Amino acid sequence: MSDYPSIVLEQAVNQMASLPGVGRRTALRLVLHLLRQSNDEVEAFANAFTRLKHDVHYCRECHNISDTELCPICASTRRDHSTICVVENVQDVMSIENTGQYNGVYHVLGGVISPMEGIGPKDIEIDSLIERVTKGEVDEIILALPTTMEGDTTNFYIYRRLENAKSSNPQIFKSSNLKISQIARGVAVGNQLEYTDEITLGRSIVNRTEFKG
Amino acid sequence: MSDYPSIVLEQAVNQMASLPGVGRRTALRLVLHLLRQSNDEVEAFANAFTRLKHDVHYCRECHNISDTELCPICASTRRDHSTICVVENVQDVMSIENTGQYNGVYHVLGGVISPMEGIGPKDIEIDSLIERVTKGEVDEIILALPTTMEGDTTNFYIYRRLENAKSSNPQIFKSSNLKISQIARGVAVGNQLEYTDEITLGRSIVNRTEFKG
Repeated sequence: MSDYPSIVLEQAVNQMASLPGVGRRTALRLVLHLLRQSNDEVEAFANAFTRLKHDVHYCRECHNISDTELCPICASTRRDHSTICVVENVQDVMSIENTGQYNGVYHVLGGVISPMEGIGPKDIEIDSLIERVTKGEVDEIILALPTTMEGDTTNFYIYRRLENAKSSNPQIFKSSNLKISQIARGVAVGNQLEYTDEITLGRSIVNRTEFKG
Repeated sequence: MSDYPSIVLEQAVNQMASLPGVGRRTALRLVLHLLRQSNDEVEAFANAFTRLKHDVHYCRECHNISDTELCPICASTRRDHSTICVVENVQDVMSIENTGQYNGVYHVLGGVISPMEGIGPKDIEIDSLIERVTKGEVDEIILALPTTMEGDTTNFYIYRRLENAKSSNPQIFKSSNLKISQIARGVAVGNQLEYTDEITLGRSIVNRTEFKG
């Protein structure tokens, strides 16, 4: 006999435990919580995921998750379409939107280049980014990828691809001096220097910026 | 505009975040994980919960979760049906089964008496326990409820109900000396005395047992 008193219970626990970071004990607790809810509530819970999977779109321009073919940010005339911020995933778009500091548009790669995990340039939305830049009216690309080795590799790869496209076919760009920038790296606001890691602190000294009092 | 780029995404996150202990950030991470799975996998995930809710039974005898009207433990002829272990929930049955030290049957209360949370004796399976004891051939009741104030209250309430039933109608019991026991409380195996809390240590001295060398 299995550890579980019921096969349907075990199957539900197996499904819940398939989520990343959810162990079997937690999964059982969550499933028993669901079991205490009404039929309608469990139905709504289950339906939300199948509906998401069926109804979700990816914006044809920036590849962000969207209810429509073109996401509200790409469809907005109040956004600056000449600036594209390149991010890894949907959460990053939400984080940057929450800052209220950015009025351009996005390009969601859906991952970063990671030879260890077998993710190459063709597995993420890099070709579509290059295409977007070469055909569109783009002034600046902001690289806002994670500050990891994989993020750095991806930054460098995109930079090289853009440089190649520019040198082989300069007239396709709006201006010959397409600006490629990356988000500032340094000591986080509110952090004590003594608790900042050496690499971050070292780079923040090398890459110091002019003080504007 | 909402924080989420898509309404179906937001609804899925809302549902995931309705689970206890799952925050909105974790919920988003889990939902995006599901979104990366195949249609069939998401379908299987969602179906497991609706199927559970529709197909699950509660054993008519012990009220444990079961695929059948009578759970395998209550249906087994190899279990000692004269001993009933009273527990709070399904997980407790699984924990005790895993010890391999118990061969009796169970009674799952589905909670403990908690005036703070508005859970009274009528809200949990106490009446059915008393009924089971008075009509059945029961020798011993083992109270295995949590060692909390709520657990103690419930223990005491069940004890009083059984004593009342016994004194008002002694012939309905198999033997007049129905044994009511509770699981041993004391210093956990492997624990240092200096790290054991005072109440546990104090009680373990007061309730010391004979040393059988």
